[in-house]
Amino acid sequence: MARTGSRSRPRPVRGSDTALLIIDVINDLEFPGGERVLPWALRMVERLGPFARRMRGAGVPVIYVNDNFNHWRSNFRDVYRHCTRAGSRGRVVARALRPQAQDYFILKPKHSAFFATSLVPLLEHLGTKRLLMAGIATNLCVFFSAHDAHMHEYDITVLSDCCCAESDMDHDLALDQLQRFLGVRVCRADEVRSERGPKRGARVPATPRT
Amino acid sequence: MARTGSRSRPRPVRGSDTALLIIDVINDLEFPGGERVLPWALRMVERLGPFARRMRGAGVPVIYVNDNFNHWRSNFRDVYRHCTRAGSRGRVVARALRPQAQDYFILKPKHSAFFATSLVPLLEHLGTKRLLMAGIATNLCVFFSAHDAHMHEYDITVLSDCCCAESDMDHDLALDQLQRFLGVRVCRADEVRSERGPKRGARVPATPRT
Amino acid sequence: MARTGSRSRPRPVRGSDTALLIIDVINDLEFPGGERVLPWALRMVERLGPFARRMRGAGVPVIYVNDNFNHWRSNFRDVYRHCTRAGSRGRVVARALRPQAQDYFILKPKHSAFFATSLVPLLEHLGTKRLLMAGIATNLCVFFSAHDAHMHEYDITVLSDCCCAESDMDHDLALDQLQRFLGVRVCRADEVRSERGPKRGARVPATPRT
Amino acid sequence: MARTGSRSRPRPVRGSDTALLIIDVINDLEFPGGERVLPWALRMVERLGPFARRMRGAGVPVIYVNDNFNHWRSNFRDVYRHCTRAGSRGRVVARALRPQAQDYFILKPKHSAFFATSLVPLLEHLGTKRLLMAGIATNLCVFFSAHDAHMHEYDITVLSDCCCAESDMDHDLALDQLQRFLGVRVCRADEVRSERGPKRGARVPATPRT
Repeated sequence: MARTGSRSRPRPVRGSDTALLIIDVINDLEFPGGERVLPWALRMVERLGPFARRMRGAGVPVIYVNDNFNHWRSNFRDVYRHCTRAGSRGRVVARALRPQAQDYFILKPKHSAFFATSLVPLLEHLGTKRLLMAGIATNLCVFFSAHDAHMHEYDITVLSDCCCAESDMDHDLALDQLQRFLGVRVCRADEVRSERGPKRGARVPATPRT
Repeated sequence: MARTGSRSRPRPVRGSDTALLIIDVINDLEFPGGERVLPWALRMVERLGPFARRMRGAGVPVIYVNDNFNHWRSNFRDVYRHCTRAGSRGRVVARALRPQAQDYFILKPKHSAFFATSLVPLLEHLGTKRLLMAGIATNLCVFFSAHDAHMHEYDITVLSDCCCAESDMDHDLALDQLQRFLGVRVCRADEVRSERGPKRGARVPATPRT
Repeated sequence: MARTGSRSRPRPVRGSDTALLIIDVINDLEFPGGERVLPWALRMVERLGPFARRMRGAGVPVIYVNDNFNHWRSNFRDVYRHCTRAGSRGRVVARALRPQAQDYFILKPKHSAFFATSLVPLLEHLGTKRLLMAGIATNLCVFFSAHDAHMHEYDITVLSDCCCAESDMDHDLALDQLQRFLGVRVCRADEVRSERGPKRGARVPATPRT
Repeated sequence: MARTGSRSRPRPVRGSDTALLIIDVINDLEFPGGERVLPWALRMVERLGPFARRMRGAGVPVIYVNDNFNHWRSNFRDVYRHCTRAGSRGRVVARALRPQAQDYFILKPKHSAFFATSLVPLLEHLGTKRLLMAGIATNLCVFFSAHDAHMHEYDITVLSDCCCAESDMDHDLALDQLQRFLGVRVCRADEVRSERGPKRGARVPATPRT
């Protein structure tokens, strides 16, 4: 009942029409194969951490979409605490990529960031048209979220060095499929240009330089 | 990526096939007309508080579905804090109906509890077939959630004395429409029987006694 | 598999950002109370028929969203045939409002035009931002479709003389609720102006003249 | 408005809790790479045609979910006519797999059979818990539909010899991913047993014999 009365069409609340989606990085990695993901995740952190900072600086909204770990209680903080508990395999990764105050977070019950979540209304609220996608695992939750983003007709870039999987092969295969079958753009984080737009502040074209 | 591998069909995790949906009671009531809702909300608290306790005792899951107040950050605790801040019109109501540790909560971006939320997967996870519905306001978020529940083909009971609206007339009209047009059951909280079932523990038939 | 490869953001395929939604008028009216709807439906036809023609002439897409009558077979023609069979109570109404070649039609399984249908992708395909809504019944399928349209943040006008219900009271009450609670615009068909826009051809502001 | 009043929970309308989903076989194959799909599709027909007949005989509902080819008009027959027109590359395939009178068909606007369609309500109407999946292309619409079916928690079997893709490699890779990452069952059509159940008539366990 909080918001009654007439509501107009969503208006971008930020200067950027791009958003950075970070998927399932707050993760205890306590699943079969998680031990194989860990070294790749640690390398991912080195790229994704600085990239997310750059995006925040450029006014690009950063949206964490994260497994609810069967909590079903809409408390991201509990999920964060769970994944950074002493002994959690994913503790270092989750702490290094801890969301900042201005970031958004959404808990998802299944693989795709779009399934049974409020991601679409949030993206409409933000005026997002272009998605930069990162996270764990390239061939599962990132892959399936990219697919749903495609059906929703967003312009999609998957950041090859800000995603990881159990193996190089699974990672490469998934990126190859996204490119070949869905026409998704795949590039490294340092290929995403930020430039200051003339009017609305920061603007980040999601196109690789080359 | 948390939960990979084959997943079987949902299995009820509780003995009860009923759930209590409590809508938008964690509310600062700071909207036009909120001052008219308040006295009705205070009366609602007297019925809904004890009823929710009775349901918890009977093993019926209690699910809060609540407006996100434009936070978009999947932190129910922030919403609770916001609505119980000093000076919030809804403070007494929200504190009296504070969720308990075993309860579920889901933040919704729009009127209906079903729109862009994980309510359906949660209900499937819980094995819910019957919904007891309560909250604010009878003629808006409760009404529209009941309608969506109807399209999803749940068995629905709206608890007339555990809902409220700006006026008696709006409240009565909405309940009347739900009964006449959608065949929704409407009864008072004390008309919902709890009985111990023979096998699976608690069972709460959602049918009024009369 | 028909459409693979990269797909760009939807582009309006028509000059108009408005669409006319016509709900459940292809109807046999063979339900309890249908005999009370019929006289109102016949009056509705007199307004909606010419209005739909005016909209077609102005380049506004006309979209029929219609109950599937449990056919589940995605054949609008079968539904049309069923509703215009000899002896069908709704035969005259359905024939008078028969869709034209350029119109769209979508079959829906439940009350709302938005529930489990491809209406949202179609509206995105057409570049629709504003909905003119008409059909049967004001207080059920039109009402609930208007509500879902509101959650999807379309600009909504319900055409009071192009909708009908079992009784005047149900009709008026539903329109009153849409105006008061959701801020939906309600006006007569002749209050919708069509004017030729400067560039893109027809343009139909959904605002009443007064 | 067709179906008002109280509606009870869906009841299986058939004896079987299994359904056969046939995806995008009514297809003109007029897309880049379609010429490479054709020979595989002709082989697929030899297995899928008899298998669908066997399923119909066993009381298993057969559901065609098919691209709308941008028609947006809910007329499967138009799509069928379009794909079987003289000169259509997919004509022989579409004609050989023509839906029968008792089959269901749903038009989809995007890759997944579940996206913006009434497939879920139909499956609930039918009481379906297990899906046998077939069609074109293994690595696109079948693959993404299988993924959505997984998120909806259906029990899934993909029929390896009743699907096809542009190349053997794309086909095998997709099936391998479905097995490894989602735990989907993959088997040949002749590995699906039909047996008569004791009470409800036909029953088709979706498990391979071996």
